[in-house]
Amino acid sequence: MEIIVAKNSGLCYGVRRALDIASETRQKKAGKVFTLGDLIHNPQVIADLERQKIHSINDLDGLNKATVIIRSHGASPDIYRLLTQKNIEIVDATCPIVKKIQKLVEVLAKDKEEIIIVGDKEHPEIKGLIGFSQGKGIIVENEDQVKSLPNRKRRAILAQSTQDLYLFEKIVSALIEKTKELNVYNTICRSTQTRQKSTSELASCVDILFIAGGKNSSNTNKLYQISKRILPNTHFIESAAQIKPEMLKGAKKIGISGGASTPPRAIQEAVAKIKASFKHQFHREKTVQCQR
Amino acid sequence: MEIIVAKNSGLCYGVRRALDIASETRQKKAGKVFTLGDLIHNPQVIADLERQKIHSINDLDGLNKATVIIRSHGASPDIYRLLTQKNIEIVDATCPIVKKIQKLVEVLAKDKEEIIIVGDKEHPEIKGLIGFSQGKGIIVENEDQVKSLPNRKRRAILAQSTQDLYLFEKIVSALIEKTKELNVYNTICRSTQTRQKSTSELASCVDILFIAGGKNSSNTNKLYQISKRILPNTHFIESAAQIKPEMLKGAKKIGISGGASTPPRAIQEAVAKIKASFKHQFHREKTVQCQR
Repeated sequence: MEIIVAKNSGLCYGVRRALDIASETRQKKAGKVFTLGDLIHNPQVIADLERQKIHSINDLDGLNKATVIIRSHGASPDIYRLLTQKNIEIVDATCPIVKKIQKLVEVLAKDKEEIIIVGDKEHPEIKGLIGFSQGKGIIVENEDQVKSLPNRKRRAILAQSTQDLYLFEKIVSALIEKTKELNVYNTICRSTQTRQKSTSELASCVDILFIAGGKNSSNTNKLYQISKRILPNTHFIESAAQIKPEMLKGAKKIGISGGASTPPRAIQEAVAKIKASFKHQFHREKTVQCQR
Repeated sequence: MEIIVAKNSGLCYGVRRALDIASETRQKKAGKVFTLGDLIHNPQVIADLERQKIHSINDLDGLNKATVIIRSHGASPDIYRLLTQKNIEIVDATCPIVKKIQKLVEVLAKDKEEIIIVGDKEHPEIKGLIGFSQGKGIIVENEDQVKSLPNRKRRAILAQSTQDLYLFEKIVSALIEKTKELNVYNTICRSTQTRQKSTSELASCVDILFIAGGKNSSNTNKLYQISKRILPNTHFIESAAQIKPEMLKGAKKIGISGGASTPPRAIQEAVAKIKASFKHQFHREKTVQCQR
């Protein structure tokens, strides 16, 4: 029996950077330090931050004399304006890749009729991006929503940085029929693309696959959907405790992958839990060159 | 038993226009009138043109004192130059939609690094289009060929006017992964898109479907492939004589469609042949609102 951890699984550069910025800010500042929304969609890491007295807030009402960290997902220009009006110090931990997408939306809004933003409308990155579109952004979450869009001579389309590439391609395909000139910006970050690719490859060569991460993590959910399409025997786990020995029965190759907000610890705990369920020899590799 | 002719099947505007231009030219000119290549990919219509003394030529060597008609597919700028050098009168019957695509390629070639042209490399329209690209055009015929293309920051993609929309979408999808900014020009003409859609709808609601047209007609071949994907019981026929009673055995709904170069006569003959094979009551409709 083998346990294979997907290459490119776990914390991405943007999330690691935001966590580092948060810790540095806490060390430098004596006053209150908040993150606007959870810095990372992972309950264990959020508990760690709480212990460091970095609290997550969702509401800016009544806030004063504090430092507010903008998380890696970024925020809309309204939020920056509001914080500035309130004289609150901003520490911007927006992922540099997301920052680039915000700038792209800002530039496109100047001369395009319509900007299609493929993503989850409740996701903070999307809420931020739409704020840069000057009312020209339309959020599309799935292929079905394309049906209600009108024909246009020209429009632009881009994606949330952690979007499922397959879904993005499907939505682009559906829009081609409705658009004479469609400018497609593949803004899905390289890290997301390689993570999705590694998870797809792993899903096609194992008997069972665990996707570790927070249920509220958009990109981890996407990994789950991608794997599930290939391997129905895919399980989303928020903690290693959810791995039950009966799930592993008969499995010869067991895969584990995690999203951009899944800390290494979560993966390690899942590996340990699987090992504890067996008394055989293990072989663990980091690459995904396995073949059925 | 029903015979259902696909809505939007048969001769398109560009081909009808080219045929009209050819007849008018013949009436006006006393001298030799040639078409550069077959005016239409249909053997019966070519025979008609021959009878009118409008001959098809493929080679310009030794040609002088004649009128040459550029067919609806268009031609490359080299051809126009060569004809002008030879003092040969040109009558340009290039389909206005193809003309627009040629202009687009010309404009794109000025500032784009690379222009992907989706089409059949041996098709006259593609041979014409590539001539306008100043060496920046790359012909892509299928998804597989995308694999050998490098990653690029920016490229444009467009299609032969009679391209299979599904294939175009597939190639665009494959290119998204390799291109940061992909400018997609849906140059598949409306007539092709509606014809393909009607044929798809018809294929999904009949028991057998005949695609009538010349084997050398690119767009008719595409209709055949589109139908075959949905209904394996699809047959390409060049003439009604190819419809055999044994093919029709057990069929309750029989469909017929034809490409942009399929004359109405070919469709009518196919209908007559099917009717002759049966002694039952017929119901023929022009719409494709049938349901299984």
